[in-house]
Amino acid sequence: MTVLRKHMFDLPDGMIYLDGNSLGPLPRAVPDRVAQAMTGQWGAHLIKGWNLDGWMAQPSRVGDLVGRLIGAQAGSVVMGDTLSIKVYQALSAALQMRPERRVILSDNGNFPTDLYMAEGLIRQLGHGHGLRVVDPEAVADAIADDVAVVMLTQVDYRTGRMHDMKAITERAHKAGAVMIWDLAHSAGAVPVDLAGSGAEFAVGCTYKYLNGGPGAPAFIYVRPDLADQVEPALAGWLGHEAPFAFDLAYRPAPGVERMRVGTPPVLQLTALEAALEVWEGVDMADLRAASVALCETFIAEVEARCPSLTLASPRDPAQRGSQVSFRSEHGYAAMQALIARDVIGDFRAPDIMRFGFTPLYVSEGDVRAAAKIIEEVIDGRLWDRPEYMARQRVT
Amino acid sequence: MTVLRKHMFDLPDGMIYLDGNSLGPLPRAVPDRVAQAMTGQWGAHLIKGWNLDGWMAQPSRVGDLVGRLIGAQAGSVVMGDTLSIKVYQALSAALQMRPERRVILSDNGNFPTDLYMAEGLIRQLGHGHGLRVVDPEAVADAIADDVAVVMLTQVDYRTGRMHDMKAITERAHKAGAVMIWDLAHSAGAVPVDLAGSGAEFAVGCTYKYLNGGPGAPAFIYVRPDLADQVEPALAGWLGHEAPFAFDLAYRPAPGVERMRVGTPPVLQLTALEAALEVWEGVDMADLRAASVALCETFIAEVEARCPSLTLASPRDPAQRGSQVSFRSEHGYAAMQALIARDVIGDFRAPDIMRFGFTPLYVSEGDVRAAAKIIEEVIDGRLWDRPEYMARQRVT
Repeated sequence: MTVLRKHMFDLPDGMIYLDGNSLGPLPRAVPDRVAQAMTGQWGAHLIKGWNLDGWMAQPSRVGDLVGRLIGAQAGSVVMGDTLSIKVYQALSAALQMRPERRVILSDNGNFPTDLYMAEGLIRQLGHGHGLRVVDPEAVADAIADDVAVVMLTQVDYRTGRMHDMKAITERAHKAGAVMIWDLAHSAGAVPVDLAGSGAEFAVGCTYKYLNGGPGAPAFIYVRPDLADQVEPALAGWLGHEAPFAFDLAYRPAPGVERMRVGTPPVLQLTALEAALEVWEGVDMADLRAASVALCETFIAEVEARCPSLTLASPRDPAQRGSQVSFRSEHGYAAMQALIARDVIGDFRAPDIMRFGFTPLYVSEGDVRAAAKIIEEVIDGRLWDRPEYMARQRVT
Repeated sequence: MTVLRKHMFDLPDGMIYLDGNSLGPLPRAVPDRVAQAMTGQWGAHLIKGWNLDGWMAQPSRVGDLVGRLIGAQAGSVVMGDTLSIKVYQALSAALQMRPERRVILSDNGNFPTDLYMAEGLIRQLGHGHGLRVVDPEAVADAIADDVAVVMLTQVDYRTGRMHDMKAITERAHKAGAVMIWDLAHSAGAVPVDLAGSGAEFAVGCTYKYLNGGPGAPAFIYVRPDLADQVEPALAGWLGHEAPFAFDLAYRPAPGVERMRVGTPPVLQLTALEAALEVWEGVDMADLRAASVALCETFIAEVEARCPSLTLASPRDPAQRGSQVSFRSEHGYAAMQALIARDVIGDFRAPDIMRFGFTPLYVSEGDVRAAAKIIEEVIDGRLWDRPEYMARQRVT
């Protein structure tokens, strides 16, 4: 069954948007809902909004909506902060679960902030922990007996290469390590069976395939049987058992609620909650089938039209998330030229042109049209034009 | 000169809002600006918004707007996350600056989340640090030679009692301790001379007197001469020197930018940026004079009308922030009755009725009208009514 529902998004006319793996487009339901939260809730109810408008419960309520898309049990996901903060929380809790071990294992395909947060935590602890970073293909064999935590992003942000969540989690557990999955490029992109994987922790962001908007809050999952034992490093008042008792001493809330920290970002959560409505009735297997079809079409079309581009993503769809990357020595300027032609992808140094495929609002026709424009840009050597060569920030 | 500018706020008809110390009302400029950020920026520009619409620079740009209201140097304040997270960042950095000391000193008038975050950090470090919590009046004398960090909220959230920032900072420095000020109830409430205080760190939230809306982001200040030396514990990619180089190793950005962590909450920052426009042309000395006048009128009126209420705030305006609290054994139910009469304050256990005075949108007439309604509630023993007695969450 088709999952295409372009009418639910506010996409600029003529734009082919293949960057939903970076920032999803605006779902049409969002502006009115956020406007209502501003004038009908904040403006009309002021402080009473915390009770009247359900703001206080929003991080859990929205957490459950996200949880459904990643195969998490109800009540096991909570929203808040940013992905970096959630990585830190998971990592700190995981290290506490293996006090006798000192190694955090990750790979060099992980998104840098995950590695930075690990570095910062290690430096801060000063207990001789180390971060071991290997090639993605070498991860499974690197899970040795000294590894406390395996921390991986399932889908590589550069190439779309996808780890086998279940197999690696099993391997980690066999070696006695705790498993943390970063689902930034998985949530809403591929079917995820978090509960079935047995992983202890998962984190992710919601501004990519979940279309929550710039700066949308992150999520964290804690396996339900562990959630009551986790010691929060970031022991904020909204993770307290009774925040409004204003006790001087911290007592963690039951379950994953203890991973809440400070006051939730109500406007961003409202945008996200509205954005998640586009997922009603979407079967993740259908989404995956559509995503694979779009990626396969794109690869075939681009390879046929542009022999100078080299596929940087796995050719086997089973090993790929919902994005396709090509390498080109002219990648940066070529991508600028493409963007000027309203085909929006992005560039990752040194030479990766990245395209995300989001079947909720990208059609087969879009993909074919995009490939044709890519051919025009490459054949026309548009990257030689000075206006495309200037270096600028690309997020 | 009057600072009253009620027309710039969207206040419900007939409501007297004395809870701006908890959540400020909706500034009229906010809805259109956030709507524009949704449809004109996110919707129209999608990923390009990070460059075209200045989203990436927003945390520093808005930080400077906040900085002006708290006497901070340009470029010394950055926005993001929540106050709890910012407390953690400041505290972790401060402890690293005094590796030979083990005590964090605070007081029992501090907002609990500050103490919780300290507890969590101490537990996590496992280096034998301790949190010493004394009475607010005892702080200055408790700054001993073993104190690494003095961490205080300047204005007590329950009583409005205000610490002398300059005197305590001097005392801390004389003892070799690092000073962290939480300005949650100071920013936009009283004149603050952060630069002049010499304090190393300050943090605060923006949803109270700065009217940034529910879940508005927090701020952190690092004294400029120290900012390049601070080791961020929360080493997120947007605090990296070159976030878009996607290096595997962390290198902190110059200055306070290193205290950024993850992707900034663009919608909340846009709301806050618009909200801060109401401060244009406000002289903080005028604001303070108006605030003191409102508080003095309120105390005089309530004491004259309601002898059963006991002033919980300092009587000397110089020792008080911009709020007034009264104790009453019927405080909870009486506050519910007041709220039902559209006089909005709040309650803090065990017996504190709390009223915030915000001269931008509260007038002398409002204060007198509120006092009269308080008298009616107290004289009429409205707290005896069952509808006001049920216990409920109050933020």
